[in-house]
Amino acid sequence: MVYFDAASAAPLHPVARQALTASLDEGWADPARLYREGRRARLLLDAAREAAAEAVGCRPDELVFTSSGTRAVHSGIAGALAGRRRVGRHLIVSAVEHSSVLHSAEVHRADGGSVTEVAVDRAGAVSPSSYAGALRPDTALACLQSANHEVGTAQPVAEVAEVCRAAGVPLLVDAAQSLGWGPVEGDWSLLAASAHKWGGPPGVGLLVVRKGVRFAPQGPVDERESGRASGFENLPAIVAAAASLRAVRARAAEEAARLRELTERIRTRVPRLVPEVEVVGAPERRLPGIVTFSCLYVDGETLLHELDRAGFSVSSGSSCTSSTLTPSHVLRAMGVLSEGNVRVSLPPGTAREDVERFLSVLPGVVAGVREKLGAPVSAGAAAARERDDVLVVDALGRRCPIPVIELAKVIGDVPVGGTVRVLADDEAARLDIPAWCEMRGQEYVGEEPADRGSAYVVRRVS
Amino acid sequence: MVYFDAASAAPLHPVARQALTASLDEGWADPARLYREGRRARLLLDAAREAAAEAVGCRPDELVFTSSGTRAVHSGIAGALAGRRRVGRHLIVSAVEHSSVLHSAEVHRADGGSVTEVAVDRAGAVSPSSYAGALRPDTALACLQSANHEVGTAQPVAEVAEVCRAAGVPLLVDAAQSLGWGPVEGDWSLLAASAHKWGGPPGVGLLVVRKGVRFAPQGPVDERESGRASGFENLPAIVAAAASLRAVRARAAEEAARLRELTERIRTRVPRLVPEVEVVGAPERRLPGIVTFSCLYVDGETLLHELDRAGFSVSSGSSCTSSTLTPSHVLRAMGVLSEGNVRVSLPPGTAREDVERFLSVLPGVVAGVREKLGAPVSAGAAAARERDDVLVVDALGRRCPIPVIELAKVIGDVPVGGTVRVLADDEAARLDIPAWCEMRGQEYVGEEPADRGSAYVVRRVS
Repeated sequence: MVYFDAASAAPLHPVARQALTASLDEGWADPARLYREGRRARLLLDAAREAAAEAVGCRPDELVFTSSGTRAVHSGIAGALAGRRRVGRHLIVSAVEHSSVLHSAEVHRADGGSVTEVAVDRAGAVSPSSYAGALRPDTALACLQSANHEVGTAQPVAEVAEVCRAAGVPLLVDAAQSLGWGPVEGDWSLLAASAHKWGGPPGVGLLVVRKGVRFAPQGPVDERESGRASGFENLPAIVAAAASLRAVRARAAEEAARLRELTERIRTRVPRLVPEVEVVGAPERRLPGIVTFSCLYVDGETLLHELDRAGFSVSSGSSCTSSTLTPSHVLRAMGVLSEGNVRVSLPPGTAREDVERFLSVLPGVVAGVREKLGAPVSAGAAAARERDDVLVVDALGRRCPIPVIELAKVIGDVPVGGTVRVLADDEAARLDIPAWCEMRGQEYVGEEPADRGSAYVVRRVS
Repeated sequence: MVYFDAASAAPLHPVARQALTASLDEGWADPARLYREGRRARLLLDAAREAAAEAVGCRPDELVFTSSGTRAVHSGIAGALAGRRRVGRHLIVSAVEHSSVLHSAEVHRADGGSVTEVAVDRAGAVSPSSYAGALRPDTALACLQSANHEVGTAQPVAEVAEVCRAAGVPLLVDAAQSLGWGPVEGDWSLLAASAHKWGGPPGVGLLVVRKGVRFAPQGPVDERESGRASGFENLPAIVAAAASLRAVRARAAEEAARLRELTERIRTRVPRLVPEVEVVGAPERRLPGIVTFSCLYVDGETLLHELDRAGFSVSSGSSCTSSTLTPSHVLRAMGVLSEGNVRVSLPPGTAREDVERFLSVLPGVVAGVREKLGAPVSAGAAAARERDDVLVVDALGRRCPIPVIELAKVIGDVPVGGTVRVLADDEAARLDIPAWCEMRGQEYVGEEPADRGSAYVVRRVS
């Protein structure tokens, strides 16, 4: 198998493995204890904290280890909001944050707080001016990822941090996807990260709270990790996490250049090799190892399955690959096509040959899926000319990508200037029909309520 | 070094180590993913859940893995309280619970809930009737440990569960100290445990919520672990935890009998070898591997330090070994002596010779500490006969065990029937002076406010 899903999880880095094994022997005891084994564990913990702090660019006493990146985000947001409760209860997040940030925002909203979601452009990036516009006198905290986990787009963190700093509002940066590549620039206030994204073991996150930032840990606390992360420290994993962060950083510049070249090749080749493809995410300001594209008239689950059969492990933001049958919130916020979505995220060390083989396999796989889906005209999705020469496509009860396939089949029958109404009740259609119009140069008129689902109206302009 | 602090943490079990190493290769991927590595990770996770559920005696879908035992307790209590919020906001805990339970209770109280702390007897055990007495119409949840982590006393969980069940109140059992020895008996509703107590790696806890128990997870949740434990699953550690639970259980009966004999030997020998010692905790209904005793006129920190020098790692509930300079809440609740406290907790496999060597070293170590502390009469702690023939010992500004040492020095000068007032401002004196009276057959009259600290009044009766 060729594993192209490093943004989900990476196999343990050899250095991490070595450190883990060694500290299972040396670091199993309670670092709070006074006897020899405890003191040895304490030394290991202190050394790991110093190494991690150096990699982040903070003081060791500003950094605590949590049980996961998700936990670091949850604790960081809750503690920062509580620390500034007197200022107000307004929270700013971008629309493309990791679910851990958005779940924290939901909890805050349910608890009576207010939340502003900052929109992104079609490449998935926020602008510093939208953060500036979202700031209010009662803003307690702003959150922004360093780079997006689904499309790789880097965010203007330093600029947003400056805007927030000027307003006296702390900025929490979710650096999960980027910390292995380098420190987060700019004058941020809090930072969260996750070790298993940089080849460390699972079960370790980082939470950094800069000195001077008001912070009130929420929920039950104990004396561990400065009262910011309770429970027995997962020491062997912490030591391994710090060791692998140091190891990946040592080769980050070289490896970033190499992976960037490989993802650049995918970015340019895929649209030439596969018809009807949209590569999404920022072309320049982006992570080195992630490239994401969506294929019209393809369902993501079948595509993933066929790629898996062909020996490639990738992930997808398509609705059919999620348990809730809704497309990825990131693709939705960007307004790009979600059907047939593929995220390729290369682990460090990815061989060029594997990328070439992926490029040689992909066109046939996509064509095969399209053939399976598109060849027979479905009986249930009949097109009928109705009142005022409006063509109606009934795709009710059909899942992504069928509504778009049916639309594409009939658009040629619509006179230029005429419209077609697509009836659909699949959540993905709301995103994918406008995205299809954008890709094919047709006009998306809008969505209208219908007896069942919605009617999506499209005008043929070319 | 001989490590006698298994109740804090145990070195990784060889089976856990093997499982951990293997699943670092096989189980690093995201079990939520559809590709091969993800499916393999899912299989490992499912198998670990089944093994753990079998050991607990529950259904696999009732059990989730958390990032620590502490986390399992925090989430379990918060979720159970929220699930029964309509019934009321009253929580019952015993006075000798683990700090994770008491911290949860503090948070609940701070949030407007009410908490009843059930008292324990001098052996550290609760009685089912005190739980029955604490139950109210608005009781949302009761918590009880299966066995105490400091003195080893087993609690009457099955009986308390029955009392709670009859009142329709769920019982959460903190089984951290006992789960390696066997399943928790009785009709409990929720259970929390911690893998590194049974030789598993740190970073893994268990939370079991029986079907039918109302439970509303608090804080941000995601789709992992049935929405009850968020963040990427720590799969290699989970696999190792389940494997070691199975391994220790396979030898639990045999090993329990062996360790019980060793701790029984410490229980009987220590009072014969060391003068002025109180062995605390239940003599019969107790964990196999834990024995705790307190030595009069000894400070815990020096004792631990000297035992460490002699090659033994133990822990202590004495005030001087805690960061807050207060004695262990467990010893306080039991009303037993806290000075010179030593907890010996034997890991499975402890050799008899190590226990014998401990018994041969201990008397000299205690005598040495006592000599250092007790030989010179402190200038600051002068005894003076004052009004109405009351002897006053001024131990203000002196830390445990000095107040008790000074009391012991003058008691011979007090006529039988007369009293002595000990002035002290060390928190431990409040516990240790009554405990000393109990041990020495003198009458503790009570505590009175003083200009500084308190005056503890003792009447000589023999």
